[in-house]
Amino acid sequence: MPSLEAYRRALDYSYAPGLFPCMEALTHRPDLVRRVLLHSKAEQSAATDRLLSLCQANGIRLETADRALARLSGKENVFAAAVFAKEQAALSPASNHLVLHETSDSGNLGTMLRTALGFGYTDIAVIRPAADPFDPRVIRASMGAIFSLRLTEYGGFDAYREAFVQHALYPFMLQGSATLDKACQSARFPHALIFGNEGSGLPERFAALGQAVRIPHGDAIDSLNLAIAAGIGMYAFSSIQL
Amino acid sequence: MPSLEAYRRALDYSYAPGLFPCMEALTHRPDLVRRVLLHSKAEQSAATDRLLSLCQANGIRLETADRALARLSGKENVFAAAVFAKEQAALSPASNHLVLHETSDSGNLGTMLRTALGFGYTDIAVIRPAADPFDPRVIRASMGAIFSLRLTEYGGFDAYREAFVQHALYPFMLQGSATLDKACQSARFPHALIFGNEGSGLPERFAALGQAVRIPHGDAIDSLNLAIAAGIGMYAFSSIQL
Repeated sequence: MPSLEAYRRALDYSYAPGLFPCMEALTHRPDLVRRVLLHSKAEQSAATDRLLSLCQANGIRLETADRALARLSGKENVFAAAVFAKEQAALSPASNHLVLHETSDSGNLGTMLRTALGFGYTDIAVIRPAADPFDPRVIRASMGAIFSLRLTEYGGFDAYREAFVQHALYPFMLQGSATLDKACQSARFPHALIFGNEGSGLPERFAALGQAVRIPHGDAIDSLNLAIAAGIGMYAFSSIQL
Repeated sequence: MPSLEAYRRALDYSYAPGLFPCMEALTHRPDLVRRVLLHSKAEQSAATDRLLSLCQANGIRLETADRALARLSGKENVFAAAVFAKEQAALSPASNHLVLHETSDSGNLGTMLRTALGFGYTDIAVIRPAADPFDPRVIRASMGAIFSLRLTEYGGFDAYREAFVQHALYPFMLQGSATLDKACQSARFPHALIFGNEGSGLPERFAALGQAVRIPHGDAIDSLNLAIAAGIGMYAFSSIQL
């Protein structure tokens, strides 16, 4: 078996660091998991026992790999990780989509993936240039949500749009002509909620592509944090579907 | 003038790192600013010119302090910072409050402060043990929002409650008996929105203190990220006040 490399975008595999994300991989997408790494100092617990039995049930190799795990550890110690095959999964044409346009921060991207899963947005388009959704930092911030989502990266918004011409588009913009509340009242399905870059937002032209939405807030701040805005948008749109 | 120390909780001053948070301090609370630090390599720009004139207008000393700024820089370079006096500011009894119970992550705390300012929750109670709201990392994550807020730290929730007996309490809990939507429909004023710790949430006893609120989401995730949940809660409650 080839030795494990430090993660980089060009690799066809990545790492799900941490016990919880690792379990998510084994539970939802064991087909993608190539092997599981465990630290020699990982304590035996109910969680590691479950990890072991999931590996056995799926014929997945479990190995001690302190050095690879040390490389994955940031501030926190990582005692387990799944090595998994990266997969672009086609979005469902019937589902609502979350479109993340040029998200640059890994933590934001991971948090939004997790929130998306919570609010039933299981189909995600990442429009490049953007943070790498398979980066271990994203996997960790998403707490393994990515293993329950369909996600495709696109080279630009037009490539996404050509693939899904039927979706009603809701770009979130500071100058959106409809408040979130109003937009939800007349929401169409299936739709795509579109969020721009942390610093620059969405390009002006997006206002003409669909119903631009603004989240009303006081002028004491310039804008909401991206992951917060996306959370509020998904919450509001998913509420009306209930 | 005494030399500057690395930040720690016991100091009576802290740092607002970055040009934007620094400007927020000078614009909203020049009375708290003791001096402003500028890096010798900071480029002259409209922003640094404005910084200079704000210092002059307020009689605040501007000095070159590369070493102190290097100490404040994490991954990103920090070219300006305000040294400011820490202040506990009494919450307004007539305003709605945001109560952050044992928040442990600096980034979450900062993000919630910024979101709170955006949604008009300008009175913040931080219940200890919690991340230090004056930590430069919090100031940075809040983008200087703290200079437009009133914030008091309490040794425990009871101390907060004794000070504000009239506030209707809305603890956000996974098992809350009212959905956010329902809770908003019968919202009382003034109120306090209460959010618990990232890992453990709020203690069970909070359910009996007021109207416990849950944010409906699918069971594919255990819970929403704290800052996302707080953002959604403040958005929803502030919407009905409009």
